[in-house]
Amino acid sequence: MGRATPEVAQVRRAVRTAVAALPGPYRSAPLLVACSGGADSVALAAAAMALRGSGEVHAAVVDHGLQNGSAEQAAAVVELLTDLGAVASVHRVEVSVGNGGVEAAARRARYGALRAARPHERSPVLLGHTLDDQAETVLLGLGRGSGGRSIAGMRAWDAPWLRPLLAVRRSATRAACAASGLPVWDDPHNTDPRFTRVRLRQEVLPLLEDVLSGGVAEALARTAAQLREDVDALDEMAAGLLAAAVDPAADPVGRARPLRLDALAQVTPALRRRVLRAWLATAGVTALTDTHLRAADVLAAQGGDRGGVAVPGGLELVRERGTLFVRPVRWPAGSPEPQQEDLRRV
Amino acid sequence: MGRATPEVAQVRRAVRTAVAALPGPYRSAPLLVACSGGADSVALAAAAMALRGSGEVHAAVVDHGLQNGSAEQAAAVVELLTDLGAVASVHRVEVSVGNGGVEAAARRARYGALRAARPHERSPVLLGHTLDDQAETVLLGLGRGSGGRSIAGMRAWDAPWLRPLLAVRRSATRAACAASGLPVWDDPHNTDPRFTRVRLRQEVLPLLEDVLSGGVAEALARTAAQLREDVDALDEMAAGLLAAAVDPAADPVGRARPLRLDALAQVTPALRRRVLRAWLATAGVTALTDTHLRAADVLAAQGGDRGGVAVPGGLELVRERGTLFVRPVRWPAGSPEPQQEDLRRV
Repeated sequence: MGRATPEVAQVRRAVRTAVAALPGPYRSAPLLVACSGGADSVALAAAAMALRGSGEVHAAVVDHGLQNGSAEQAAAVVELLTDLGAVASVHRVEVSVGNGGVEAAARRARYGALRAARPHERSPVLLGHTLDDQAETVLLGLGRGSGGRSIAGMRAWDAPWLRPLLAVRRSATRAACAASGLPVWDDPHNTDPRFTRVRLRQEVLPLLEDVLSGGVAEALARTAAQLREDVDALDEMAAGLLAAAVDPAADPVGRARPLRLDALAQVTPALRRRVLRAWLATAGVTALTDTHLRAADVLAAQGGDRGGVAVPGGLELVRERGTLFVRPVRWPAGSPEPQQEDLRRV
Repeated sequence: MGRATPEVAQVRRAVRTAVAALPGPYRSAPLLVACSGGADSVALAAAAMALRGSGEVHAAVVDHGLQNGSAEQAAAVVELLTDLGAVASVHRVEVSVGNGGVEAAARRARYGALRAARPHERSPVLLGHTLDDQAETVLLGLGRGSGGRSIAGMRAWDAPWLRPLLAVRRSATRAACAASGLPVWDDPHNTDPRFTRVRLRQEVLPLLEDVLSGGVAEALARTAAQLREDVDALDEMAAGLLAAAVDPAADPVGRARPLRLDALAQVTPALRRRVLRAWLATAGVTALTDTHLRAADVLAAQGGDRGGVAVPGGLELVRERGTLFVRPVRWPAGSPEPQQEDLRRV
């Protein structure tokens, strides 16, 4: 395993702390490490092995089949992980390009395979995302412009996904691998400027570091962590308000139970819109834009029976006798359904 | 005044809507427009004149005395504003460079002069900040890394400051001035790359627009508006919790009244830290870092009488019998006061 340099010690400490903070059943289950063969996930796997004994660390290498020689590459990583003492295997996935392009399709397939590869139902899946990945995620989210939610970054724990390295720099994982004599694989995709994330990493972040006099990656990660707590606090309050505003015994109209608006009368706009979004989600309406949500909010905040606020899925919101409900839009025969002009999600 | 092109109409509509949304006493008072002579504030002044009659629109041109010919430049802008029908005058300020450099000192002096120039105590001061300025402010805040507060941008209304153009592009104000035949002054400071804001405008934003496929300035402004509402909602709840957790009849210990911790027992971390920050502000402690606040939060969240959490101003937090209070640190004779290592403010 080599000497415990400061970087090796930092990665080990991060893994130990993250696993110790897990809820009980997850804390004692065997670990599954997702490993690409890159420095981040190899350092993660080595630290997991230092924490847990043989047989307690499983490792999954996902072969997306998107590059020549990917099977051989995956087999080499499995060999390395096996040498480290992990129970390692390759998981071949089929990437079918759907909405959002190759990156999104590969991610869906990968997360599905990792979930299935867990040795135990309560096994946490350790992912190698670093502070640098978190900073890039925040910048990606800025382009969506959907408030705190879109720039709150990745969660450290979102069962079964555990990200112990969100406060560790990518350079530290590379140094840890070098110090331990562990070979790492540099995925050519990680430097391919056709990917937005790569250009954020190679062009935008270095420029921002220069213009803002350094510390930007850390600042972005810190902002993400604070926003995550703010978003969670507001979402939790909204869930409580929603529970109080919906009568569980009521018959669902269309696909959602009616929402009593008196329960939202004294609520600030930021919370009221969250309650509306959560309520609409119970009706299966999720691809909401800021425009939709603000229109729904005007309907909720202003008195009088009205309808006609269209939301995705061929539905409309109607206000009647102090409650809001969702129903299918009844289009005049022969008229086309309106197009969604703005697909930015809120 | 020229033809009402779409841009002229957009600026006028923005001013009309913003003034109409003001609280009563401010809505009917004479307006004060802050005008540099640049396109943003000239378009703003012209729109204010279109909204209000003669004598109802005052305009203040601040001469910072930082550039050669600034007095002549200011006089020329006053002449233009007078021609438009405004009651215009120059306000010469002395910029004394203190903390934060020339930009911060000029801003302090300018805001002081504008406040003093209001024709009426309830006059709103109209500022020409555009959507582009808001986007730059968000990027500046990202470098601070202090969560939602630092990237929530500028408020549309923060008495007496009114920013009607936060949803209007800078290019629209320029087009509006051109359409109305109004001459505009291009401040050389606005293209001087020694200023961080200028480099964000000229280098970072264009690169982000390219990498994220456009719409970035609008996305940043939208994010700022949503975060502002989130931050305000959480701050409002924190103020309510603080009021309930402090006994107004209690004797202040040191400079703050004791904080009863039972009132915070069921409160989420994001809110609890806000209550602590607001409470510490009542003791005059404002230059808090994230590290200070998290240390204070650990003291608040964990049982047992303890002390020794140092906060700025030579103070420390102490926990005793379920309450938190602030007292001056009693240093052992001869020992130096510890240095603040981390001056990032929260």
